[in-house]
Amino acid sequence: MVRTAIAGASGYTGFELIRLLAQHPEAELTAVASRSRAGERLDSVYPALGGHCDLVFQAPDPDALTSRADVVFTALPHQAAMDLVPLLLERGVKVVDLSADYRFRDAEAYEAWYQPHKTPELLAEAVYGLPELHREAIRKARLTGNPGCYTTSVILAAAPLVARGLADPGSVIADAKSGVSGAGRGLSLTTHFCEVNEGFKAYKVASHRHTPEIEQELSLLAGEPLRIVFTPHLVPMSRGILSTVYASLKEGVEEGAVDDAFRSFYEDAPFVRLRGADVPGTLQVRGSNYCDIGWKVDPRTRRVIVVSTLDNLTRGASGQAVCNMNLMSGLPEASGLLFPPWQP
Amino acid sequence: MVRTAIAGASGYTGFELIRLLAQHPEAELTAVASRSRAGERLDSVYPALGGHCDLVFQAPDPDALTSRADVVFTALPHQAAMDLVPLLLERGVKVVDLSADYRFRDAEAYEAWYQPHKTPELLAEAVYGLPELHREAIRKARLTGNPGCYTTSVILAAAPLVARGLADPGSVIADAKSGVSGAGRGLSLTTHFCEVNEGFKAYKVASHRHTPEIEQELSLLAGEPLRIVFTPHLVPMSRGILSTVYASLKEGVEEGAVDDAFRSFYEDAPFVRLRGADVPGTLQVRGSNYCDIGWKVDPRTRRVIVVSTLDNLTRGASGQAVCNMNLMSGLPEASGLLFPPWQP
Amino acid sequence: MVRTAIAGASGYTGFELIRLLAQHPEAELTAVASRSRAGERLDSVYPALGGHCDLVFQAPDPDALTSRADVVFTALPHQAAMDLVPLLLERGVKVVDLSADYRFRDAEAYEAWYQPHKTPELLAEAVYGLPELHREAIRKARLTGNPGCYTTSVILAAAPLVARGLADPGSVIADAKSGVSGAGRGLSLTTHFCEVNEGFKAYKVASHRHTPEIEQELSLLAGEPLRIVFTPHLVPMSRGILSTVYASLKEGVEEGAVDDAFRSFYEDAPFVRLRGADVPGTLQVRGSNYCDIGWKVDPRTRRVIVVSTLDNLTRGASGQAVCNMNLMSGLPEASGLLFPPWQP
Amino acid sequence: MVRTAIAGASGYTGFELIRLLAQHPEAELTAVASRSRAGERLDSVYPALGGHCDLVFQAPDPDALTSRADVVFTALPHQAAMDLVPLLLERGVKVVDLSADYRFRDAEAYEAWYQPHKTPELLAEAVYGLPELHREAIRKARLTGNPGCYTTSVILAAAPLVARGLADPGSVIADAKSGVSGAGRGLSLTTHFCEVNEGFKAYKVASHRHTPEIEQELSLLAGEPLRIVFTPHLVPMSRGILSTVYASLKEGVEEGAVDDAFRSFYEDAPFVRLRGADVPGTLQVRGSNYCDIGWKVDPRTRRVIVVSTLDNLTRGASGQAVCNMNLMSGLPEASGLLFPPWQP
Repeated sequence: MVRTAIAGASGYTGFELIRLLAQHPEAELTAVASRSRAGERLDSVYPALGGHCDLVFQAPDPDALTSRADVVFTALPHQAAMDLVPLLLERGVKVVDLSADYRFRDAEAYEAWYQPHKTPELLAEAVYGLPELHREAIRKARLTGNPGCYTTSVILAAAPLVARGLADPGSVIADAKSGVSGAGRGLSLTTHFCEVNEGFKAYKVASHRHTPEIEQELSLLAGEPLRIVFTPHLVPMSRGILSTVYASLKEGVEEGAVDDAFRSFYEDAPFVRLRGADVPGTLQVRGSNYCDIGWKVDPRTRRVIVVSTLDNLTRGASGQAVCNMNLMSGLPEASGLLFPPWQP
Repeated sequence: MVRTAIAGASGYTGFELIRLLAQHPEAELTAVASRSRAGERLDSVYPALGGHCDLVFQAPDPDALTSRADVVFTALPHQAAMDLVPLLLERGVKVVDLSADYRFRDAEAYEAWYQPHKTPELLAEAVYGLPELHREAIRKARLTGNPGCYTTSVILAAAPLVARGLADPGSVIADAKSGVSGAGRGLSLTTHFCEVNEGFKAYKVASHRHTPEIEQELSLLAGEPLRIVFTPHLVPMSRGILSTVYASLKEGVEEGAVDDAFRSFYEDAPFVRLRGADVPGTLQVRGSNYCDIGWKVDPRTRRVIVVSTLDNLTRGASGQAVCNMNLMSGLPEASGLLFPPWQP
Repeated sequence: MVRTAIAGASGYTGFELIRLLAQHPEAELTAVASRSRAGERLDSVYPALGGHCDLVFQAPDPDALTSRADVVFTALPHQAAMDLVPLLLERGVKVVDLSADYRFRDAEAYEAWYQPHKTPELLAEAVYGLPELHREAIRKARLTGNPGCYTTSVILAAAPLVARGLADPGSVIADAKSGVSGAGRGLSLTTHFCEVNEGFKAYKVASHRHTPEIEQELSLLAGEPLRIVFTPHLVPMSRGILSTVYASLKEGVEEGAVDDAFRSFYEDAPFVRLRGADVPGTLQVRGSNYCDIGWKVDPRTRRVIVVSTLDNLTRGASGQAVCNMNLMSGLPEASGLLFPPWQP
Repeated sequence: MVRTAIAGASGYTGFELIRLLAQHPEAELTAVASRSRAGERLDSVYPALGGHCDLVFQAPDPDALTSRADVVFTALPHQAAMDLVPLLLERGVKVVDLSADYRFRDAEAYEAWYQPHKTPELLAEAVYGLPELHREAIRKARLTGNPGCYTTSVILAAAPLVARGLADPGSVIADAKSGVSGAGRGLSLTTHFCEVNEGFKAYKVASHRHTPEIEQELSLLAGEPLRIVFTPHLVPMSRGILSTVYASLKEGVEEGAVDDAFRSFYEDAPFVRLRGADVPGTLQVRGSNYCDIGWKVDPRTRRVIVVSTLDNLTRGASGQAVCNMNLMSGLPEASGLLFPPWQP
């Protein structure tokens, strides 16, 4: 059994980690830490967990977190993560960090969109935790930067097209839509029921911080720097992301080549389900670790439209983190993660 | 491994059975039948199941259903069930019937609220599949009538009060609220999104067919015939039932006696979680087999108010059916059913 | 034109007042005050109002509020209202207070459920602003205490039964369900989208502060003190209240007498629509000032079940406040309030 | 008073027409027709209308519809409209048709996406009922083809860019999201509550029939034929459309020019509210006839992102139809349509 701990366990990604670990046949949870909830029982904060877990939140102390753990998940806000992660690594555990702090290869990109980085030396070592792109490197990693929810859905949608050179690299537009749990459990007018319910809106147009993360990975695949347009939207539902990604096909590229690219790129990926022209909706992946992808070539405009969908808390955060833990611990990639989506 | 089959697998309770059986460590699914979907792959009707099940719907033929099964779940409309169930039993399998056809001890009560019964002789044999009340009888049963969703929540809320003689038997009022999946996957204006969304309503006031089912079981517990008032309501959400049950305390009964009654009555019940005065909401049981119960004594009016909640598709239908299958097959009651609720 | 002002205009009842006054043919809005928003344009806080109102929030100063107004609406928290209301009255305007501070006839009941009252002498003068019960007194009032949302729906449901002596006064149970806007626009985990969405729960069981308000009015109608059980619930929708009210019929009372009681009691009420056995849902009154009421006698248990529904922000707060303003200003009761509900 | 009638009044656009006409100071409703509801009272189909309308549905007979009407709204399915409209025109009334049958200038485009046209000669006469583009022609029209809901939102978002030559005409991509009422009141699994709720999906990718309608109008503005990519999505809410429209700015075009284009293009439009970089959400227009538009230039990619939003039943259907009726009848464009949006 892999022994795990969670720092920052009182939010939605924390709960999702606990839910997944509670069902994991090869991992167990030994400690949960939360600054704001220290001393409270986990199942008093989340009555849903009654009978499943008798842990008590402790303060996020590095010694306490690592004393009985092989892997620590850090589900903290940006910046708080980089204060804690080095202390954990020093103590000999592996870390899956769910913040943005270890997603970037060089400090410059991070600093342009976030703030000064305190441990730039760790960026060289950290692996971007998207198994479909970096499976082997994750297996050997001591530290993975777990991808953002939007980024996972957009990268997986565009990767085959960009990697196989089928699309004009400058043409990618990602129109993404997320459920409200992506905004976390903190209080703000933005997540007030009556301000969200029965409404739909765009936000952070041309300025969302998942943009450089997507660009980093797609540029790597393209072999040249590329820029994308990324527009996030808020959907009145709790869970789910759907990204509609547009790209212009290069001259001479036909529909069959697009199909082939998707099929070959995801040949060995247990968590990508390809739907072809029957484009998926968020419900069919809810609560699961799948990313379902469909696509259509529009011959009238020579564009390909890719629709990818995933659950932002599972595949877009905690499920992917468990997957990274699996790989880093020598377990099968899909261990504890192969259960059917929730429906209805 | 217990081998199971499902007749009537294309609706929501059918999907929920498939979802639960896909995760069950001691049972497997060998056949799914649906008159309307015969010939279609299960995962084309439910894309969520892609990768989990390669079964094809067959016609609900008794031989085909029983040839590779030890237990058959019948998730058919009332009346269709009683046509099929005897044919299944004849072929030597056990049956968990999710319709109302085998929930009543005598044909008279059934016929007063439903229609003529075709196999009244089976009613004597069938066991009412509520494990908290009939655990031992279910273990020996060949046929269980799986309780209704509302009935499960109301009976579990009122049982300790009635069984321990704390409440006036004629005083029980059950005000129940259900999510929309309780109405099934069939088409009707009642389940059209825009007719349900952002609205709340009562229906079948003083005339819902779960009434006699509740009365049958509570009368048994009370040791005398009793009548209740039962009002169902529709909540704009997919899953969940919450019942608020009111009863007048008998003279001299104090709060402590009420607490004791709940604690002792559910001492050995793995799927009842008692919350005391911290009354539960539906979210904390969603997707699980739990029924959470809270209660409060109002000294001003000498009434006790009990709030019980469960997921209508899991504990209120398919989870309870799996639990009955477990008991009827000699498996532990909770096998395959102990996973945390979905949140958020 | 009646000139009006609003103190506490930045919340949902404030917005609803503005929306109603913007369409009112005989009233106009001259000032809006909000401590937290002073200096901001109304349409920057509520972009929906763009083009409808160029007012700027001012501080809730009594002189400024009354300088150009005949009637002031106070939509402030309990306690804040009783600080401001006397200052407004002194300046010669009439006041419709939407808090609980002026809903009680004697300070004692208020103080038992709220806090010490600072202006008990005004309670004798204040009129309970429920037109169906106190129309003539409201016409002459200088100060009305606008009823709570739950209370309006429960009182209107039970009044004919209690006033006509058809029901046992001690038997009334009110099971009420409200949309989330009833909790206001303030931030709390209770109104976080993901904590409310797809869930249903009871709260403040046997302890909600609308209880004594309902008891005050029903006792008056009954001619004797009575107590009720009142249980509020939260529905995952923005607007609407539905109350299911149970009462035991007195011996000899038949269904026809119940029908007659409702028809005669609401003969002249422009905002009560009677539905008989076709009990209403919240959608059919959404956004309107109607209270729709249906009922059914259950001969099996000798109980009557009444279902009443209204929009908590319109009839349950701001619409009723405008109605009171109409009456206090000599306008027709329904002026500016007769528009169809929102659907779907 | 303009006398109006509605053919096809039992659906959501029919109800919305009735709601708007009930509040219209210069128009009245004299007849409602519905094949499926003939003989039923309007307020038994829509209890919300109780007290507002005592009309009875009649069969859609041309003589009955025109006998007391100056303008008839036809809210029928495509194809049924072209059977009835000529018969109405012959009888001397004006017609606002809400189907697609009279939105196209030439039969060819219509027939490529729909079916053979039975009255192609009327297409030359019919005016496309988008007041911002064709106000003067509508004033003189006998027949207007009321635009589709998606089309209205996409055309209004892109028109200034295309008309002023700021964007590459081949670069327009419209990613649109609609509430469920856009699918009408008919029954289908697509609109079943549990299939829509808590989910988000794309549909008819690169094949939706609003595409040619958008292309017709934008091509006219561009002065050359252009093609767009259009992707509709379904949002789990009842009302509202939001379109995110992407276009590549031509070389040398700066942000200021984009701002100027929007401001000048909509200078005299009472129902377009410009928000600049503060892009709007659907809630701020719900229930109103407004189309709110915001935009942002992304200097990194030289793209402009425009976000437009409207209520699909009001501005996207029945509100716009009333606006066309106003113009065709010599009334002010905004008569009966200037009320604030619904919130929350």
